[in-house]
Amino acid sequence: MARLGDTPLLTDLYELNMVQAYLEHDVIDVAVFEFFVRSLPPGREFLVAAGLEQALDFLEDLHFSTSDLQWLRNSNRFSDDLIGYLEGLRFTGDVHAIAEGTVFFPNEPILRVTAPLPVAQLVETRLINILHFQTLIATKAARYVLLAQGKQLVDFGLRRAHGAEAGLLAARASYLAGFAGTATMLANQMYGVPLFGTMAHSFVEAFHDEVSAFQAFAESRPSQTVLLIDTYDTEAAARKLVKLTQRLKERGIIVRGVRLDSGDLIALSRSVREILDTGGLRDIGIFASGGIDEGVLAAIMQAKAPIDGFGIGTSLTTSSDAPGLDCAYKLQEYASLARRKRSPGKATWPGRKQVWRRYAADGRMSGDTLSLESDRQIGEPLIKPVMKGGQRLDRPPLSEIRAATAKSLASLPDEQRELRPGAQYPVAIGAALSSLTEEVDRRQDAAEG
Amino acid sequence: MARLGDTPLLTDLYELNMVQAYLEHDVIDVAVFEFFVRSLPPGREFLVAAGLEQALDFLEDLHFSTSDLQWLRNSNRFSDDLIGYLEGLRFTGDVHAIAEGTVFFPNEPILRVTAPLPVAQLVETRLINILHFQTLIATKAARYVLLAQGKQLVDFGLRRAHGAEAGLLAARASYLAGFAGTATMLANQMYGVPLFGTMAHSFVEAFHDEVSAFQAFAESRPSQTVLLIDTYDTEAAARKLVKLTQRLKERGIIVRGVRLDSGDLIALSRSVREILDTGGLRDIGIFASGGIDEGVLAAIMQAKAPIDGFGIGTSLTTSSDAPGLDCAYKLQEYASLARRKRSPGKATWPGRKQVWRRYAADGRMSGDTLSLESDRQIGEPLIKPVMKGGQRLDRPPLSEIRAATAKSLASLPDEQRELRPGAQYPVAIGAALSSLTEEVDRRQDAAEG
Repeated sequence: MARLGDTPLLTDLYELNMVQAYLEHDVIDVAVFEFFVRSLPPGREFLVAAGLEQALDFLEDLHFSTSDLQWLRNSNRFSDDLIGYLEGLRFTGDVHAIAEGTVFFPNEPILRVTAPLPVAQLVETRLINILHFQTLIATKAARYVLLAQGKQLVDFGLRRAHGAEAGLLAARASYLAGFAGTATMLANQMYGVPLFGTMAHSFVEAFHDEVSAFQAFAESRPSQTVLLIDTYDTEAAARKLVKLTQRLKERGIIVRGVRLDSGDLIALSRSVREILDTGGLRDIGIFASGGIDEGVLAAIMQAKAPIDGFGIGTSLTTSSDAPGLDCAYKLQEYASLARRKRSPGKATWPGRKQVWRRYAADGRMSGDTLSLESDRQIGEPLIKPVMKGGQRLDRPPLSEIRAATAKSLASLPDEQRELRPGAQYPVAIGAALSSLTEEVDRRQDAAEG
Repeated sequence: MARLGDTPLLTDLYELNMVQAYLEHDVIDVAVFEFFVRSLPPGREFLVAAGLEQALDFLEDLHFSTSDLQWLRNSNRFSDDLIGYLEGLRFTGDVHAIAEGTVFFPNEPILRVTAPLPVAQLVETRLINILHFQTLIATKAARYVLLAQGKQLVDFGLRRAHGAEAGLLAARASYLAGFAGTATMLANQMYGVPLFGTMAHSFVEAFHDEVSAFQAFAESRPSQTVLLIDTYDTEAAARKLVKLTQRLKERGIIVRGVRLDSGDLIALSRSVREILDTGGLRDIGIFASGGIDEGVLAAIMQAKAPIDGFGIGTSLTTSSDAPGLDCAYKLQEYASLARRKRSPGKATWPGRKQVWRRYAADGRMSGDTLSLESDRQIGEPLIKPVMKGGQRLDRPPLSEIRAATAKSLASLPDEQRELRPGAQYPVAIGAALSSLTEEVDRRQDAAEG
């Protein structure tokens, strides 16, 4: 399958307008851009970096096809010089990044692009589009993982994800963050994310009665059946199941679990558990879904309801309480001079930066310093080279990224791990970064006269 | 370009599991499914139907490729019978729908699929994924259109849309709802949505000083320049522009507008307007962007700030205050018998339905009746055939859909047009629908014993 969004025309018009103007005025020196999140939305105490693999895929594959170029030519919007430039364009720059799955905080860049200005500019829109979404979802998913304390979590959110790519990449980002898997088949094919699935109400309704439907589904999946029991009357369905299971067992058919998808999940899980246990079905797990968000999951955990796993849909794949991050991809340096914007509320730190992370004796994170790459600080430098002259240096498997994410989440301080609202993690600004900022402003003030 | 999400493997595992069980138990009679929204999220008083074109594209193209089938075979999850069935599978059913751009309300189906159960089931996930997203965005965009009272609106939201397809289809859905256009180039290529674009801060920062950047950009786009003036000091930039514009004019270069992207947009638009007017630049428009949501736009309109157009980003393409709709695709009839689920809080109306819409003498909508297709009511029937035996009957151009949307929005009652919170539109339930519901429940109760 062709990669989604693989044409460079998936970009903003202004990128091409700017590239044309850069070329006309010979503003084609090396530029440095960094991607970062400006601030945490309410309800977030940390972020989880994700999407680097797809960002590098995009840069590696960057090219304008013959039909892209023909379309641009026919649009009569652009100069022949621009189209000639785009014809041979490839990404041959350098990329530095924080590894996927690493916890990070506002103003800490997770990606740096170093390339001639027209190229580094052109890739802005899609790079943001890629990094923003997976970081958004990995961050949201990590919260469920921390809340669920080891219980099984499955992504059920393709249908209400925002389009095809969102559904697919939400499965990747949530698996990376610690989900057990997804219902989305294509995510298994493309990324190897483990698959989970039960049955829908329509299946039950298509049969004359519920038991016939359960039996038919179990016969079709003799060792993996999870039955949906809330179509008509959940407790009645659980009682029918007790009788049915015995008959199925004699034929070697095992029912693994039941799914609750509506009603009071805490109360129903208890009554269903009791019905199943009394019927000798202690091995049948209870799986819950249906509008589960952070609040519902926290209440279920607090009540110690006997639920073994959760399908999380819309609230995961849309990051429903915070569906966007205030992120940016900003020019930090051009022609060896540091740059920054000073717009009210949106001023940025200039220069090529590094994040140094310190850990306490127990392995927990104790504070970060954001400074210039050249301003060595105490701690582990998080930003590392990942692409050199357009060649990627590494492609860690998703399983490795997932393990690293678990480690990163485990090293969060208690107040972030416990998702305490408003928890603040210390990020210091290095002295060299502060002085560079002043220097850039002085130079700019002088230029503006 | 290949259509995004064009493999049927972009679906939930359970769809294929159910199809396999249907085939094994010969449950392959004709099924009727309907797509509808269960309830309005807070902050919505109506919905705008969208996505039908892409839904029909999906059904028309539905097929499993050789490599899809090979992958399914190699997964060892499915029977040879299932794979054989999928091999020749095409969508040959009927589809009825409410036209794109039509205003609708909870429980009113906007799409009905009539096809053999395995096929109608298989398409569930992606159909929801397609219809949900564009309906979500068209609905959100319509609110901006009503708020903006004819001022220009442009979609700036690709970068923070949830992936490639969301960015692309948000441009389509917002244009359909009345936006003037988008910044997303691919939406112009694929759907003919008009393009708009200005410049980024990085362009300004790459030059020695702001005036050099403005001049370079204007020279490159002599008749269409919109300059971004908030990189350093907005009012200072406006004053510089007054001087620069005179020099550019002598060379035949016209500056069309300025863009404000940060700070107090109301206050800045007034001071910039005054600077431009005093400098004789009454023709230069002021365009605003930067975190504009419904509240910000309403405040700007209320203050009668001199802003001529708006770029709306994240709040549009993520529908940030309500990033999901509680929608469903449910079995309504199987083998000529009506069906429904009765799960608490999620019970559905059974049978093949129709929506009849009544209008007052002034052309405004006065109330809908939701009943069975066979239960003729007063009013205009909204659900019409759009695909017959797998062949689509019509493909209205986007411009036509856009005009119909404007008409539909104009016919909303005042309280919906004015977005009065909690406004309730009357949707009556037809007597035949109520009796069928009771009949289905009686039959089901008897079946369950």
